[in-house]
Amino acid sequence: MNPKDFDPLLHERVRLGILGLLLQREEVDFRTLRENLQVSDGNLASHLRTLEEAGVVAVEKTFAGRRPRTLYRLTPEGKTRFLRYLENLEAFLKTLKQEEAS
Amino acid sequence: MNPKDFDPLLHERVRLGILGLLLQREEVDFRTLRENLQVSDGNLASHLRTLEEAGVVAVEKTFAGRRPRTLYRLTPEGKTRFLRYLENLEAFLKTLKQEEAS
Repeated sequence: MNPKDFDPLLHERVRLGILGLLLQREEVDFRTLRENLQVSDGNLASHLRTLEEAGVVAVEKTFAGRRPRTLYRLTPEGKTRFLRYLENLEAFLKTLKQEEAS
Repeated sequence: MNPKDFDPLLHERVRLGILGLLLQREEVDFRTLRENLQVSDGNLASHLRTLEEAGVVAVEKTFAGRRPRTLYRLTPEGKTRFLRYLENLEAFLKTLKQEEAS
C-alpha cells in the first residue's frame, strides 16, 4: 500500500476524528463533536461542510425542545469509503511491521 | 487517541510513503524513492526538503562512479518520531475496531 493513494479527502486529522466518532456512535450532534475533538466551531463546521458536500456525511437539523440541534451521521457511501481508508491504513502498518520483524 | 493530535508534519501522504521506505531500507536514493512512490521530482524534492529541515531525514551527497547520487535516511530522532506516529495510528485503529466488535 502506497500511502500516496490514501483517500485525500479523508486523510486529514480533524476529519478523521469526526469520522471515527460517527463510526462509533452513528449519530452525533455538533456540540458533542466539538467537545470530543477540541476544535473551534469554525474549523469543525468547515470540515463538516466539506464532508457533507462530498456525500460522506449527512446532516439533519432538528430541535431539542426549542433549541436547534444539528445531527451528523455517515452516509452508507461515507461509511464504505471510511472503512476502505481504514483498511488501507492497516495494510500500510502491516507492511512496516513485517519489515521490522524480519 | 484523537487523530487531531497526529504529528502534522508526518501526516501527509507522500511523506508517509517516504518515511515508510526509509524505515524499511535504512538508506534510499532519490531515484528509488521516486520510482516507488510515483511522484514528480519537484513534489518529492519538496517533501524531502521539509523532512530534512525538520531534522527527520538526513541527506548525503555521494557518487555512483561519476554520477552524483543523493542518499536519504531517517535520523535517530526522525525514526523515534515516525514510530510514535505509527503507534498513534495503531491506537486509533484499535479504538474503532473495539467499537465495531462490541
